[in-house]
Amino acid sequence: MLSELRKQVYEANMELPRRNLVTYTWGNVSGIDREKGLVVIKPSGVEYEELTPDNLVVLDLDGNRVEGDLNPSSDTKTHLALYKAFPTLGGIVHTHSPYAVAWAQAGEDIPCFGTTHADYFYGAVPCARDLTQEEIDEDYERNTGKVIIETFNGRKINPDHLPGVICRSHGPFTWGADPAKAVYHAVVLEEVAKMALFTRQLNPNAAPAPQRIQDKHFLRKHGPNAYYGQSR
Amino acid sequence: MLSELRKQVYEANMELPRRNLVTYTWGNVSGIDREKGLVVIKPSGVEYEELTPDNLVVLDLDGNRVEGDLNPSSDTKTHLALYKAFPTLGGIVHTHSPYAVAWAQAGEDIPCFGTTHADYFYGAVPCARDLTQEEIDEDYERNTGKVIIETFNGRKINPDHLPGVICRSHGPFTWGADPAKAVYHAVVLEEVAKMALFTRQLNPNAAPAPQRIQDKHFLRKHGPNAYYGQSR
Amino acid sequence: MLSELRKQVYEANMELPRRNLVTYTWGNVSGIDREKGLVVIKPSGVEYEELTPDNLVVLDLDGNRVEGDLNPSSDTKTHLALYKAFPTLGGIVHTHSPYAVAWAQAGEDIPCFGTTHADYFYGAVPCARDLTQEEIDEDYERNTGKVIIETFNGRKINPDHLPGVICRSHGPFTWGADPAKAVYHAVVLEEVAKMALFTRQLNPNAAPAPQRIQDKHFLRKHGPNAYYGQSR
Amino acid sequence: MLSELRKQVYEANMELPRRNLVTYTWGNVSGIDREKGLVVIKPSGVEYEELTPDNLVVLDLDGNRVEGDLNPSSDTKTHLALYKAFPTLGGIVHTHSPYAVAWAQAGEDIPCFGTTHADYFYGAVPCARDLTQEEIDEDYERNTGKVIIETFNGRKINPDHLPGVICRSHGPFTWGADPAKAVYHAVVLEEVAKMALFTRQLNPNAAPAPQRIQDKHFLRKHGPNAYYGQSR
Repeated sequence: MLSELRKQVYEANMELPRRNLVTYTWGNVSGIDREKGLVVIKPSGVEYEELTPDNLVVLDLDGNRVEGDLNPSSDTKTHLALYKAFPTLGGIVHTHSPYAVAWAQAGEDIPCFGTTHADYFYGAVPCARDLTQEEIDEDYERNTGKVIIETFNGRKINPDHLPGVICRSHGPFTWGADPAKAVYHAVVLEEVAKMALFTRQLNPNAAPAPQRIQDKHFLRKHGPNAYYGQSR
Repeated sequence: MLSELRKQVYEANMELPRRNLVTYTWGNVSGIDREKGLVVIKPSGVEYEELTPDNLVVLDLDGNRVEGDLNPSSDTKTHLALYKAFPTLGGIVHTHSPYAVAWAQAGEDIPCFGTTHADYFYGAVPCARDLTQEEIDEDYERNTGKVIIETFNGRKINPDHLPGVICRSHGPFTWGADPAKAVYHAVVLEEVAKMALFTRQLNPNAAPAPQRIQDKHFLRKHGPNAYYGQSR
Repeated sequence: MLSELRKQVYEANMELPRRNLVTYTWGNVSGIDREKGLVVIKPSGVEYEELTPDNLVVLDLDGNRVEGDLNPSSDTKTHLALYKAFPTLGGIVHTHSPYAVAWAQAGEDIPCFGTTHADYFYGAVPCARDLTQEEIDEDYERNTGKVIIETFNGRKINPDHLPGVICRSHGPFTWGADPAKAVYHAVVLEEVAKMALFTRQLNPNAAPAPQRIQDKHFLRKHGPNAYYGQSR
Repeated sequence: MLSELRKQVYEANMELPRRNLVTYTWGNVSGIDREKGLVVIKPSGVEYEELTPDNLVVLDLDGNRVEGDLNPSSDTKTHLALYKAFPTLGGIVHTHSPYAVAWAQAGEDIPCFGTTHADYFYGAVPCARDLTQEEIDEDYERNTGKVIIETFNGRKINPDHLPGVICRSHGPFTWGADPAKAVYHAVVLEEVAKMALFTRQLNPNAAPAPQRIQDKHFLRKHGPNAYYGQSR
């Protein structure tokens, strides 16, 4: 079942170590079949070398295991909450990539300092707040999703225009139209987080790029008037 | 047509990922045949693995496509503006290499802190200003070139002595007598930008190298009295 | 004798250069057979390429060489002191990995800034004090162990919950239930030290993660209610 | 002639790119045959891929070319000055390794912050002053050597105990009993410079390691009472 999606999710997971985004098993990718309402996700704590399309776990959106013998990623409920809240998402990634984590640990949004950022993320990458004791006790992973959703809705951010977030004290989640694009955004976020750290080292008071530059670059690549790349 | 130049531009583009200067497709190299007035450039958004000498795009200096089915790099008009303004340029490179981008995002010239810099760039690498709303609306990429040219002319900088620039909020362009030398300068610029960031971390008030040292090193490698290397 | 443990210690030592934790011979791993009271350790100053399971050194807990022609690691007495004081340790690692060394050289505990840290180290990684002249003169390596033990006992830290330390002006030691797990913790410590440095660069006054988050993440992976990974 | 020394110098030069100490041709190694009074050195501006034991250049200590068709490294006179002043040197290395360069560009000695440094360099690595206009005009490369020698003699530093220097606004020179050991010290210096930068980022006022620790570590590896490694 879902053999094509399993393959996509497998390939996307394997791209994480190739892109140096994960140490050991510190990352996971999922993908969703919107018609069937089923999610394919990495099993928890399994080394990438041992991963195959067949040992991925299939769940419905309520978290019931539909296929697979292994436990799903411990972050599964976060993925499910995001799929339910944001209907355009086709794939989700979580990593502990170090530069994005640093911003999460500092508890700051990653400012849009330039065009590398603006090409993919339309505005600062938001830092979602720490969970409360009650939220942790009730359901840590599901409420991690809830706080991300609250952040996007509360700030009126469109998740298609800003395909990622950093969770305070924790690390990044990114997403996209499919698992490969979600990983692409994880790579971009880490690169952008690195450049932003270097920028702050040069000037602790560095200002974001002018809004007109952010608009130009995002819209050069996205939306009806995009003209970057081929076949548009 | 232009098979030798196609090969040079192809090789120079492929050198970018080998030298870790680009993530995904975030870079492009062009080369010019001055006699024919034709420019060969990377197509837009094409992965380096899919690049061949044959799928490069050939344009005249007004941007008319002479050969090739693909769209040229979205930065093409910037390259063309520079070729027109600076007649000694044989190749141009644009990347988002992270240390050079950091200086661009901080909006500062890269000071000449030492001999590694002075061996190739005679003075600070200038940071060209952000474009205005009017310049963006009129023609973003062409006006990016215009602002680079304005920076060099306004500060009376010889582009042969300072083969690169960083565009504020954006990133670096470098150039050289041919595409390979332009890439060489892109590598040097990134290395110099890294060393300069580290220098500033050690001393936020670090001063440039004394002018006499800058003169000595640049002129040891360039001009009639150069004595670095073989066969001079 | 101890052929299985020799193999484990050999593999764990070879993992250090693969994980970029050591330059030249700047690291060593040991393992202990608790029943026999024997320790297997890397010989001193031997290149990793020349290491084999057979040229490892076997010692009793008083440091008497039981097998092997080579001198044991110069840090052997530190390992032995830790094995004697902390009876759950099965493997110990010492490296000069650069980010952990930086915190040791700055003389500061590594704060628990986030979940990457909390998943493995329950609280700040302590920085053990410099040795006194008397301690150096009497027995430098044994007293390095003594000061680590004093640090854990004095602060009432459980070495199973905090499997590592940084020794002031020197560098990290980590441990685990076996040599492979000790190396795993060495890798995690370096990654965590890197993220913590980046966090401090963004905010020199960054606060540790809230205690509730540290509790949640450590206990999600450790103890009777752990639910990360498979087969629990 | 000097085929064994040629081989050593060749191998030592090739180690520089393998250890990531050089970009392009930014480094050179020489070795000396003290009995014959002849120095073997890398030719100027030659890529490492094109280097062979046979195209190295042989010079006497006055700089007269004895064998080889190529121009010797542009830094040759600096090497010769150091060989003449410091009779125990068997090999010398110059690089532009970025962390060492950063300290040179900041114009500061690299403090001995810990044991990694103290194991090889007994005290701060000195930063030699910029040359004057007169020194540059007279003979830049020879006077670079003169200023290094002046630094060591003026501060009463034993070059066998402190096998390296950083030249202000320029970069590092290291040395050793033979070319391989000189490269070893170049690797250590870069690693130590990196750790020292990280230490300063954590604490801009970080103090050097206590003298008693510096003494212990240097003397544990060097001199009559050394006990690190095998066969002493």
